[in-house]
Amino acid sequence: MRILVLGGDGYLGWPTALHLSDCGHEVAVADNFARRGYDHEMGVESLVPIEPMQVRLDAWREVSGKTIKSYYGDLCDGEFTIDMIADFRPDAIVHFAEQRAAPYSMIDRKHAVYTQQNNVVGNLNVLFAIEQVDPEIHLVKLGTMGEYGTPNIDIEEGWLEVTHNGRTDRMLYPKKPGSFYHLSKVHDSHNIEFATRIWGLRATDLNQGVVYGQETDQTARDQRLATRFDYDAIFGTVLNRFVIQAVLGHPLTVYKPGGQTRGMLDIRDTVECIRLACENPADKGEFRVFNQMTESYSIDQVAKIVADKFDGSAEIEYVDNPRVEQGEHYYNVKHTGLVDLGLQPHLLSETLIENMFSVADKYKDRVDLGAMRPTVSWRTAQSPLRADK
Amino acid sequence: MRILVLGGDGYLGWPTALHLSDCGHEVAVADNFARRGYDHEMGVESLVPIEPMQVRLDAWREVSGKTIKSYYGDLCDGEFTIDMIADFRPDAIVHFAEQRAAPYSMIDRKHAVYTQQNNVVGNLNVLFAIEQVDPEIHLVKLGTMGEYGTPNIDIEEGWLEVTHNGRTDRMLYPKKPGSFYHLSKVHDSHNIEFATRIWGLRATDLNQGVVYGQETDQTARDQRLATRFDYDAIFGTVLNRFVIQAVLGHPLTVYKPGGQTRGMLDIRDTVECIRLACENPADKGEFRVFNQMTESYSIDQVAKIVADKFDGSAEIEYVDNPRVEQGEHYYNVKHTGLVDLGLQPHLLSETLIENMFSVADKYKDRVDLGAMRPTVSWRTAQSPLRADK
Repeated sequence: MRILVLGGDGYLGWPTALHLSDCGHEVAVADNFARRGYDHEMGVESLVPIEPMQVRLDAWREVSGKTIKSYYGDLCDGEFTIDMIADFRPDAIVHFAEQRAAPYSMIDRKHAVYTQQNNVVGNLNVLFAIEQVDPEIHLVKLGTMGEYGTPNIDIEEGWLEVTHNGRTDRMLYPKKPGSFYHLSKVHDSHNIEFATRIWGLRATDLNQGVVYGQETDQTARDQRLATRFDYDAIFGTVLNRFVIQAVLGHPLTVYKPGGQTRGMLDIRDTVECIRLACENPADKGEFRVFNQMTESYSIDQVAKIVADKFDGSAEIEYVDNPRVEQGEHYYNVKHTGLVDLGLQPHLLSETLIENMFSVADKYKDRVDLGAMRPTVSWRTAQSPLRADK
Repeated sequence: MRILVLGGDGYLGWPTALHLSDCGHEVAVADNFARRGYDHEMGVESLVPIEPMQVRLDAWREVSGKTIKSYYGDLCDGEFTIDMIADFRPDAIVHFAEQRAAPYSMIDRKHAVYTQQNNVVGNLNVLFAIEQVDPEIHLVKLGTMGEYGTPNIDIEEGWLEVTHNGRTDRMLYPKKPGSFYHLSKVHDSHNIEFATRIWGLRATDLNQGVVYGQETDQTARDQRLATRFDYDAIFGTVLNRFVIQAVLGHPLTVYKPGGQTRGMLDIRDTVECIRLACENPADKGEFRVFNQMTESYSIDQVAKIVADKFDGSAEIEYVDNPRVEQGEHYYNVKHTGLVDLGLQPHLLSETLIENMFSVADKYKDRVDLGAMRPTVSWRTAQSPLRADK
């Protein structure tokens, strides 16, 4: 298949492109390198050094003998988007190309507006380009489990059979997202569902859990193929941050009370889920939703798992929660769609954590401790980027 | 109370400002005059001539002795928005200032992107300005009944008690909107609910039905106070268009099959609903939703009512439906919230229709027949603005 990976320079976009290429697909990546720009804005960088796109592509050609085509541009530029899609003529488009950090979207008005405008407009341009170039192109769109929030009922895969006053309908699952970023993904989901309904497009919306891990079979083949490993309070996700804190002898900082539960998955499962979604496209006119996660853990449990597996002592510290979220809640998520397509989950095992400890240890001198302290508060409309500024 | 009406130059914003001023409130209007700009773009104009804002304000002062303050600017300009709100320090903000035509949003990619960007970003800027200037300010936001679509269950007022697998939660009512415009309002609703949840703002979301009529007690007091009366296929709403078609001896054009049912209300009820919402604010942290409509009719029924009431012969013609919508469907809407606050609805009565016929007759020489034919199709991503171009 011909597969275009939007956001192909990112934490997950890049390993996904490699995995798809390795599986024999004809792959192109597109990026505007906005994620590298956020590093400059925040004054942080990936713990693991990453190479420029051209070096990455050359290394992959050396290692695998396969070529990945690259497009440089911004999806908010509608003409660029349609020209690229008309040029590459993909069978599937994997869309990772959005601002993806909840705290970034909560810094202040400008970051909230940027996040929603960037994500919603870029996604609209992709929908219009598909309709105009070829409505058969399958859109595989990255959403987030955070779209659902933490409802008191089971979380289904995107749709809910509702019975009310004796009548029944199959409705989009009601969403209650937890940040302006998560909201942008809810907006996207609604726009995509509409496009499948009026234009007969094919779309898969992947509500992804928190991803952990840094290596895949492909990125491990050459240091130049490494993907990002973020640990800062804005872009770093919780398990990755705990691993680095343990390695540094720093307490693992759990946002109070710690009972917040989230769906999670291994980075190797992310890339495999995308392959499965692409190779088994949604029907014409179908808005298909999968909950892309393999296990649920509370933040407390994650901290304890990391502390237990760490080969040394690791303390857990409960810190004030900068977010507005439920501390104790029901959480039961259906996630059988991708398993039915053949996903064999990597569960949160010793192997992977050990690998992460060794990655963290190798680059621990690059850590900026100040970047780990949360400064962005959900309770105010204006937060500082760093505690030390 | 001090009330700021955003979009105060529009079809409903202007009569609302006059009604609130007449009821003794201290009123300001804000507008960027985008709606007048769409007229130039489309090559159409209001059937009833409307005066520039300054003439309107002077006329109101002459007629009532009351002053309405005016701000000129664009809500997408965050600094303008916060400065204005800090300057006027309203108790309530009535937010009409969005691109409000479904067909306009469906013309092509640029109009879809413009609609969502304009509406979503403007609304975000209002939320941030309220949080920063005074979180006590009550936001009264205009949404649309079209956010719900036509579900097979009763439509509640914004929230739904869902029971699923033996557990229960109160959730946002699942939405299935019918255009990129309607989607923009769904996005707004989600953003507003989040702001009430994290910042404790007070908000009322008014899911308004199709408004008909052109005169209110205040606009009738001087011809210079008239509000718009749109009949074109982009901005004209269905009852208004049928009245003008009847007066011109043109068949009333019903989009097939005609069983499409919508909530409707009289323009005099719109302005009264807004007053009631302002004078009875939502609680701190409350996302309150009212379905602002008084009756439901199918498009067929509306055509028949207009034809029956018209003092002459009026034919009904069934034309191909440019929209993608259900032709026959269940439609049962709860709309008791505003009645509980004291609304006394004007039902679709002979009186009002007669008044509309006389208004249409007075200005019938201004009608551009070509503008009434629908050219914007929901089934394609690129439509012409006019059939005759």
